[in-house]
Amino acid sequence: MIMKDKKQGLLIVISGPSGTGKGTLCLELLRRQKFVKVSVSCTTRAPRPGETEGISYFFRTREEFEHLIKNDQMLEWVEFCGNFYGTPRFAVQQLLEAGYDVVLEIDIQGAHQVKQHYPEGVFIFIAPPSVAVLSQRIHDRGTESEEIIRERLAKAIQEMNCLSEYDYLVVNDEILNGVDKLQSIIIAEKCRVKRNCPYFKGDIK
Amino acid sequence: MIMKDKKQGLLIVISGPSGTGKGTLCLELLRRQKFVKVSVSCTTRAPRPGETEGISYFFRTREEFEHLIKNDQMLEWVEFCGNFYGTPRFAVQQLLEAGYDVVLEIDIQGAHQVKQHYPEGVFIFIAPPSVAVLSQRIHDRGTESEEIIRERLAKAIQEMNCLSEYDYLVVNDEILNGVDKLQSIIIAEKCRVKRNCPYFKGDIK
Repeated sequence: MIMKDKKQGLLIVISGPSGTGKGTLCLELLRRQKFVKVSVSCTTRAPRPGETEGISYFFRTREEFEHLIKNDQMLEWVEFCGNFYGTPRFAVQQLLEAGYDVVLEIDIQGAHQVKQHYPEGVFIFIAPPSVAVLSQRIHDRGTESEEIIRERLAKAIQEMNCLSEYDYLVVNDEILNGVDKLQSIIIAEKCRVKRNCPYFKGDIK
Repeated sequence: MIMKDKKQGLLIVISGPSGTGKGTLCLELLRRQKFVKVSVSCTTRAPRPGETEGISYFFRTREEFEHLIKNDQMLEWVEFCGNFYGTPRFAVQQLLEAGYDVVLEIDIQGAHQVKQHYPEGVFIFIAPPSVAVLSQRIHDRGTESEEIIRERLAKAIQEMNCLSEYDYLVVNDEILNGVDKLQSIIIAEKCRVKRNCPYFKGDIK
């Protein structure tokens, strides 16, 4: 009946429309929680000067990458400017087994792929408090034309329809508040009965 | 797309074997969280001097209590020493609709009943770190004979089999730690997508 201290970590998928501040949330979460790590991605693009295998990326040939996809070894992947980028299962699994929680900050399409390959993950949707706030945030960056902003807002609204695929909704109204919620979700998920099966099937007899 | 601030509260059912310290956990939770309330129970026993209707208990006749049971108006109830005691749905619902979270600290049988009548509740099982610790805690109270202690331990071990009916397991190793977990579970549950349906079905179009 003794709780195992060294349990496998959680895969935490943080996604949501562009401009909702999910990147900032993740950075603050990583800063606060030393048991939360990001996993190293895999790519077919050539290493740039200063990049190190296994730290910057896992660099693979196109054939190797395709082999990983075929063997269900990529939790998610995308082709961008002629190169593949993705999250290899082995890198995530290694961290999880060492007891770390692994955070993936990815777009809606990526999260959808991870859900197919790793449904036991914790899927968190980051949303803006309102369309007006999201619009303001994108405007404030000052890097996009009005047309692009309109397109991004339309896409964000469309992406909200994917919410039902997620476990949690965190409305990112204020960064510290949002990270508090992420931390609570992680603690609560570790208490879920379904993640503690050995406890009641185990050594209480 | 705006989050409603005034949402219905959560019904939080806290249960587990006797001696696991669930009462102390609940008291500390109530002390910390002003939005968590206990609901007033209903009973058929006569009021004692100083007891007030609607504050100490809702005092009802046996016929009235049976009518409540028949009409699915009791979330759980038990007969004890010839009197009925239970949790009336109306008292809980009133608090939930006012936006309070309602905590019910009840035994395994009571929690099982609540699950039938209010499955959308949050069911939290409080467990001791080990049988040895539970045994020690009951011994430390010094109020029970060895035979009674043996019976209570056997019952506690049997009750651990009910864990699968619950959403969360909180191992009560240390009181402050346990209450932190309860608070995290409440925050996380409020973020669950299934409890935020109006958000994505609502006013984003």
